[in-house]
Amino acid sequence: MLNHPDRLFPADSAVRAIARRLFEAVERLPIVSPHGHTDPAWFALNEPFPDPARLLIVPDHYVLRMLYSQGVPLEKLGVRPRIDNDETAPVDGRAIWREFASRYYLFRGTPTRMWLDHTFEFLFGQSTPLNAANADQYYDAIAECLQREQFRPRALFESFNIEVIATTESPLDELKAHQQLRDSAWGGRVITAYRPDPVIDPDTRGFAANLARLGELANEDTNTWTGYLNAHRRSREFFASMGATSTDHGHPTAQTADLAPAEAAALFDKVLSGRADAAERELFRAQMLTEMAAMSVEDGMVMQIHPGSMRNHQPAVFERFGADMGFDIPTPTNYVSALKPLLDRFGTHADFALILFTLDETAYSRELAPLAGVYPSVKLGPAWWFFDAPDGMLRYRELVTETAGIYNTAGFNDDTRAFPSIPARHDMARRIDCSYLASMVATHRLAEEEAAEIAKDLAGELARRAYRLPASV
Amino acid sequence: MLNHPDRLFPADSAVRAIARRLFEAVERLPIVSPHGHTDPAWFALNEPFPDPARLLIVPDHYVLRMLYSQGVPLEKLGVRPRIDNDETAPVDGRAIWREFASRYYLFRGTPTRMWLDHTFEFLFGQSTPLNAANADQYYDAIAECLQREQFRPRALFESFNIEVIATTESPLDELKAHQQLRDSAWGGRVITAYRPDPVIDPDTRGFAANLARLGELANEDTNTWTGYLNAHRRSREFFASMGATSTDHGHPTAQTADLAPAEAAALFDKVLSGRADAAERELFRAQMLTEMAAMSVEDGMVMQIHPGSMRNHQPAVFERFGADMGFDIPTPTNYVSALKPLLDRFGTHADFALILFTLDETAYSRELAPLAGVYPSVKLGPAWWFFDAPDGMLRYRELVTETAGIYNTAGFNDDTRAFPSIPARHDMARRIDCSYLASMVATHRLAEEEAAEIAKDLAGELARRAYRLPASV
Amino acid sequence: MLNHPDRLFPADSAVRAIARRLFEAVERLPIVSPHGHTDPAWFALNEPFPDPARLLIVPDHYVLRMLYSQGVPLEKLGVRPRIDNDETAPVDGRAIWREFASRYYLFRGTPTRMWLDHTFEFLFGQSTPLNAANADQYYDAIAECLQREQFRPRALFESFNIEVIATTESPLDELKAHQQLRDSAWGGRVITAYRPDPVIDPDTRGFAANLARLGELANEDTNTWTGYLNAHRRSREFFASMGATSTDHGHPTAQTADLAPAEAAALFDKVLSGRADAAERELFRAQMLTEMAAMSVEDGMVMQIHPGSMRNHQPAVFERFGADMGFDIPTPTNYVSALKPLLDRFGTHADFALILFTLDETAYSRELAPLAGVYPSVKLGPAWWFFDAPDGMLRYRELVTETAGIYNTAGFNDDTRAFPSIPARHDMARRIDCSYLASMVATHRLAEEEAAEIAKDLAGELARRAYRLPASV
Repeated sequence: MLNHPDRLFPADSAVRAIARRLFEAVERLPIVSPHGHTDPAWFALNEPFPDPARLLIVPDHYVLRMLYSQGVPLEKLGVRPRIDNDETAPVDGRAIWREFASRYYLFRGTPTRMWLDHTFEFLFGQSTPLNAANADQYYDAIAECLQREQFRPRALFESFNIEVIATTESPLDELKAHQQLRDSAWGGRVITAYRPDPVIDPDTRGFAANLARLGELANEDTNTWTGYLNAHRRSREFFASMGATSTDHGHPTAQTADLAPAEAAALFDKVLSGRADAAERELFRAQMLTEMAAMSVEDGMVMQIHPGSMRNHQPAVFERFGADMGFDIPTPTNYVSALKPLLDRFGTHADFALILFTLDETAYSRELAPLAGVYPSVKLGPAWWFFDAPDGMLRYRELVTETAGIYNTAGFNDDTRAFPSIPARHDMARRIDCSYLASMVATHRLAEEEAAEIAKDLAGELARRAYRLPASV
Repeated sequence: MLNHPDRLFPADSAVRAIARRLFEAVERLPIVSPHGHTDPAWFALNEPFPDPARLLIVPDHYVLRMLYSQGVPLEKLGVRPRIDNDETAPVDGRAIWREFASRYYLFRGTPTRMWLDHTFEFLFGQSTPLNAANADQYYDAIAECLQREQFRPRALFESFNIEVIATTESPLDELKAHQQLRDSAWGGRVITAYRPDPVIDPDTRGFAANLARLGELANEDTNTWTGYLNAHRRSREFFASMGATSTDHGHPTAQTADLAPAEAAALFDKVLSGRADAAERELFRAQMLTEMAAMSVEDGMVMQIHPGSMRNHQPAVFERFGADMGFDIPTPTNYVSALKPLLDRFGTHADFALILFTLDETAYSRELAPLAGVYPSVKLGPAWWFFDAPDGMLRYRELVTETAGIYNTAGFNDDTRAFPSIPARHDMARRIDCSYLASMVATHRLAEEEAAEIAKDLAGELARRAYRLPASV
Repeated sequence: MLNHPDRLFPADSAVRAIARRLFEAVERLPIVSPHGHTDPAWFALNEPFPDPARLLIVPDHYVLRMLYSQGVPLEKLGVRPRIDNDETAPVDGRAIWREFASRYYLFRGTPTRMWLDHTFEFLFGQSTPLNAANADQYYDAIAECLQREQFRPRALFESFNIEVIATTESPLDELKAHQQLRDSAWGGRVITAYRPDPVIDPDTRGFAANLARLGELANEDTNTWTGYLNAHRRSREFFASMGATSTDHGHPTAQTADLAPAEAAALFDKVLSGRADAAERELFRAQMLTEMAAMSVEDGMVMQIHPGSMRNHQPAVFERFGADMGFDIPTPTNYVSALKPLLDRFGTHADFALILFTLDETAYSRELAPLAGVYPSVKLGPAWWFFDAPDGMLRYRELVTETAGIYNTAGFNDDTRAFPSIPARHDMARRIDCSYLASMVATHRLAEEEAAEIAKDLAGELARRAYRLPASV
């Protein structure tokens, strides 16, 4: 047994008993996954997943970063340099797997270990801890599974009991996979979300080309401020037609601005010209958050802000391998001043909805809970990324609830590209929420009936409401 | 039963037993309330409190902000727009109460819920949880109580077992209620505290008029730096004659300065002229903290600094309804550099006493405990505002004690304008302190006899000492 | 009994039982002390320690600061003013001890209390808590011990079961004590560490003279950038010959820089001239961290950075008594941007090793764990200084492990000049690590066999590896 039935519940037997009761009532509720990074093509094409290493290791930046931190070169983990003339042979999946398995002990105490053990046992039927000795046995067993029909993406979607899942696409994506899904007879609910960073952040490589392409796709002149904004509008409409109920913005900071239209237009021209300095580029991103908020008020899409990551901290690794190699590092993030221009304009608007995330835990109790606890438009997204882990999630509730309560939070989202880990992640979140609630019950801060209601709300209902995703009938 | 006798004690039965023993010895000790915002006129006039909504909902910004965050307009909660020609009829107390009662579940997990349940049960005799169905029954029962003699302010003061309570007034307040109290035969100890923000902070609306009025009241020429400082001196003397043993300063930051007298005088002139820019206005506030410290050394008043709140974050709400609508949001607050000018001058002075508060929990262990743990003048005030809650208070002790110990903290103060909640707030603080101490005993970091001594000190003695309030005989 | 056998273990009996089992297996492992501030002359000369007060009170800034914060003048604690013509008689050790003993209650809840109780019981055989009444009995008993052969430094080193201890010296130190130790027949492993702050930080008093002296000692011309760098190289070689495997850098910030050689040389000239402004002096320190990293790649010495302390916060105390009087106060410390220049160059270099410390707990989960969890060169040092305490150490593990795991941390180091407290400090660290691991086992996040392996690694092996200190045979 890799996963104890009482895992993550409080150690105290009385509190554990409460947590267990709360969890039993939510354990099998459908999964609502309103924000994440799975590939819609998996569900559109429904092809078998590749080998175990390329399913579980190569694309998972949590796994890559830990192994790299302990001296394993990325090349040995199957990561391909992004140079044009790379002629190295692809590393064998089994070789990658052995590198990983022999160092599986490095993940002790991390959520990755728990997600993987959950996947190993409940998806792939393993019952002994992975190590160097059984690496091949694990590899063969998983590889064998992946050939079977019930391990194809759609079958997994169904067996995972996913009610709805949102992918994330840029406006430059034509959403062909989403179109295919809509054209198909399959009933799985896979929707997109609008993530316009590549056409908003002037620091994006190829920004000018991106704007040109946006213009083509939207049939608008993105050389003018008005045309550019209209292109966003067209693009958002298209995304909404493919199920999107939310937008997402991964800026380096949470800075917003509210310039007069003429100023904004002049800033756009300067940015377009490539002559904008760092402060102007930051101001443009800031202004665009407010423009996006204005469009959200128009079209009803919920706005998410995921700020505070310094992307690609190591330039040599970025040059050689590109993004998402584990080198995105959190930075101190201000919200109270930064969001003021946007909130001054839309913070109390009845139609506006904004979900805030952070990689700076100091903001939970100091800034985010106080903002969410008064602004009707603001909800707090769950513990994110490095904090989507047992202790991180528990700190989130302890730091947020006393000021913002439960109902100003947006439930859970898994935010993952690691599709097989989705059940494990929701399982972890539900266990931690139930543990938190159990401790509230045991210290007589909540009645158990109240806690049971909250546990259900946290397991899906708050996410449905926050993301405007009505339950399927 | 709304309040379990073991509420807030640790879940572990052995630790809980220790907490219970510690608490039993302090539960009924008199309440020392050295800092807060009750209205001295209540005690001076001793009139009945108005209806339940106007006692418990309308003036409580914790309640307003939560309801507003979930979409209830402030108008529906009885808040009056501050426009001159408002002709809307006052909202009926019962209607407000129903709005509140039907959303009482929103407060789950918040301290407001616990304070109210304590008030409902122990003050107003309720025993079933408030909800939409019993809203009217609650309303009628509370309204009926408020008509009775033993629910008048003085009777409550006595039944709450309040040893002393400090209110907070500005130098522009003539302290007539305090004078009435002194002139009365009633023995309740109600003292004032000197809060000069409206005549120190140039960003206050009507600052020039405030200064003129200060001059009149103090009979000094507040158009000159010397006269202005003397006006403070006269005003502080007057406050001291009305029992004040402390001053309080709610600046946006903890910045202090120590300018040469001529520089300070020139800065004052510029501020008075209305031409000072933001940096100069901040410098003036900074200089005035040091001037206030100098006067504290002269007159023995304990100085409190409550920094770090960005007041009235939402301009439209502020325009329409004014301050204290729940839109004061904490900001990152620096102490180590900010306080250096003041501490350079007075930090080791034997007669100086400074109590520091924060809305930025990151400062507890990084800055505040290290400062309080070495400067003889500095004590730490208790967990404040958003952090005056079970988890917030526990974090405070855990983050502060290892560096500053127990005896560099200033005990508890309730800092509230919600008079009926005062017993609930001290009850909560004593329970959390006893729970913290019980966990120290259970992990053999303290002997139980030591913990018992500390529990008594925390329940009143440390506040008496820090605020220079000798126990009544 | 002053020290309960179960002290610091979790209160829950089931979790405590696990912690106890884990601890029993590591309790008596040898002490690896790779970073600290003991005086090598103690071991070189092996003379008896002076009286109890001068062993345990006068040199301990944790003790001084707490007593001073509660009004005890430093003079009464035996601290001598550093004025030339001080003619005051030295304070009697017994008088100091009585001041301390009568206020021992002030240390309740602090680690100092636990370290001292451990020392009192296990080193000096005391069994009743220290107080005013038994102060003399304590003093006499300890003083009597200190006369005995088995309380001399080398005997204590052996009875403490110290495998290796590193002291810390500046390049201006000729390491005579270390040379004496090498020349002696005694087998105790005492090594040095290279701490070049006095010849790197231009804000050091006597900086120019320090550079001149460095030039003499290293036989290099420290008036030129090249000669200055070579002097470091020679000095590091000399330190390595005296056992040093690490360097240490206690800068005000973690800022690094990577200037072109000509720019760096020009900056050095300006610094040397005494005309560099604050920003240039900071840039010089920043550049020197990168130069030190470059030399670490050359000579294999592990680099430590201990940033973020504002030294000597109170100028009057500093003027009168000098440094290390308890007035070093932590400040907010940035790592992600600050370290980027250094990490851009050496962060992924296979031969580079960097151990990071912090006095700003907010950096643990936001910056330090994410950096250590991906950079192969970076390890996290243990909870430092004010955080080297039970709750501080527990927070460290809870905030770090989920992102960086266990194996990107550097084990424990005691970082102390209080030699008698070394067993107490390692005892505390091992207990807290075992308690943390026990809670992971009890919540089924780790198997107990894994936890047992980790406990051994944390008790010594991770320190040996991180500091490149092979176990003695």
